[in-house]
Amino acid sequence: MLKDYLKNQRELVDSNIEYYLNKLEYPNVIADGMRYSVLNGGKRLRPILLLMVLELYGMKKEMGLPVAVAIELIHSYSLVHDDLPALDNDDYRRGKLTTHKKFGEAEAILIGDALLTHSFSLIAEETKEVSPEKLLKIIGMTSRYAGINGMIGGQTIDIESEKKKVSLDILKYIHENKTGKLIKLPIEIGAIICNSTKDEYDALVKYAEGIGLAFQIKDDILDIEGEFEKIGKPVGSDLELEKTTYPSLFGLNKSKEILKEVLEEAKKSLEIFPKEKVEIFNELADYIGIREN
Amino acid sequence: MLKDYLKNQRELVDSNIEYYLNKLEYPNVIADGMRYSVLNGGKRLRPILLLMVLELYGMKKEMGLPVAVAIELIHSYSLVHDDLPALDNDDYRRGKLTTHKKFGEAEAILIGDALLTHSFSLIAEETKEVSPEKLLKIIGMTSRYAGINGMIGGQTIDIESEKKKVSLDILKYIHENKTGKLIKLPIEIGAIICNSTKDEYDALVKYAEGIGLAFQIKDDILDIEGEFEKIGKPVGSDLELEKTTYPSLFGLNKSKEILKEVLEEAKKSLEIFPKEKVEIFNELADYIGIREN
Repeated sequence: MLKDYLKNQRELVDSNIEYYLNKLEYPNVIADGMRYSVLNGGKRLRPILLLMVLELYGMKKEMGLPVAVAIELIHSYSLVHDDLPALDNDDYRRGKLTTHKKFGEAEAILIGDALLTHSFSLIAEETKEVSPEKLLKIIGMTSRYAGINGMIGGQTIDIESEKKKVSLDILKYIHENKTGKLIKLPIEIGAIICNSTKDEYDALVKYAEGIGLAFQIKDDILDIEGEFEKIGKPVGSDLELEKTTYPSLFGLNKSKEILKEVLEEAKKSLEIFPKEKVEIFNELADYIGIREN
Repeated sequence: MLKDYLKNQRELVDSNIEYYLNKLEYPNVIADGMRYSVLNGGKRLRPILLLMVLELYGMKKEMGLPVAVAIELIHSYSLVHDDLPALDNDDYRRGKLTTHKKFGEAEAILIGDALLTHSFSLIAEETKEVSPEKLLKIIGMTSRYAGINGMIGGQTIDIESEKKKVSLDILKYIHENKTGKLIKLPIEIGAIICNSTKDEYDALVKYAEGIGLAFQIKDDILDIEGEFEKIGKPVGSDLELEKTTYPSLFGLNKSKEILKEVLEEAKKSLEIFPKEKVEIFNELADYIGIREN
């Protein structure tokens, strides 16, 4: 059920990513590099979350698709830059060569820049049937959540925290910003497009924060327990970098307990909606707890 | 006259850059790095061009200041990334250490990303008295002119063209995109904010294209004839990289002639406006021809 649902949504997202990126031609290395970096078999969690909110309110998916693609472009650019030699220096992602290994380092920097830049034109120029006022709000939020007070901030403190023991507060800051903000973003944008009430908005944000944190804790657990073939990157890299993680702070078993609690609370926050309407949200939360990649 | 005018405008732009960047605090290395990279004694040509158009139409400068700052942030991010070891590998800019030399390479990548990202929140969230419809148009244009079909495209082909002789067509593509688009951008945005007529819009765009090209030809000439103390970077780097430039294609004297012609045409395109209203545009064109840095 969830598996089929995710597959269908992923295909819809992928075909839209292809549609928008195939419009780009020149310079070839940038256009090809953008496609290579985004069309990599990703889970499309962030775009799907936006579509899920639109469905919850019975809105047409078309209203959110350009924004959904834009968010995935931003996610992809962050991976391209994170993988660079000066940052994580990763050669593989999802079992494929990273963008700088495939296209060169200078090119990868520019490909990342181009993905980030292009995402704002998708929101501003390709989104139909959403008012200019709402689109401006969406652009402002996207910029804030992806920038110094969001994803980039989290990524920076993450790098600064390598090879040293950090407090739970700092670990939380990293999680909330490095991965959390870009998971909250599509859910909040969906709520804006759908004119959700204040209570509904807050409930959706709480759900988003919960699954965002859970996603990160699960990532840390998979870095210890996962299999290279499934997660597509070497196991144990956190340990090697002496990174502070939930498992390093609380141990593996306690981390699994926390993961479970966080997901239960995320599901609980959605009780404000009719149960049959948020089934897929609940299934997704469960899936995050058991995913193997 | 022009000198005083530019100084006043530059001070206004600088105080606004400080105002907006001083709001940013954490992570310190990113906030400090953003300020370091932008507050570097730059000429502020791009923001000033936007303010000049607003003045031409008797509009308040406040309407354009957040956008003007945003454009300067985008210009600065492009310099931070261009200077990186994988790209131009420059240690100095304007006589100061480049951002990666001062803050580290990983940090410089993220500082550049943060500048680019933040620019869109300035346009979307800080601009008052400009309609949402116009702001969306401005955001779309900014994204296109800075992206794969603009500045990044030009920068990419520029890198690919090092150490080889390229055609005039390719050289024109590089100039139009690498530097030209971000000089056109503030002028077109000004025209959008001011509701200029189609003819006025076209005239302003022609002026912008002219001074953009002239700016680049003059840069190439300065790379041969300039002084390190004035241009703040080593003279002769184009020659060393075997870059195709106007001087390498046409010789130094012919390049100076072309420069003069281009500037005359740029000034001519503004004859549609009352002469006393565009005095400063004409003086600026003349200045681009004689500037020493």
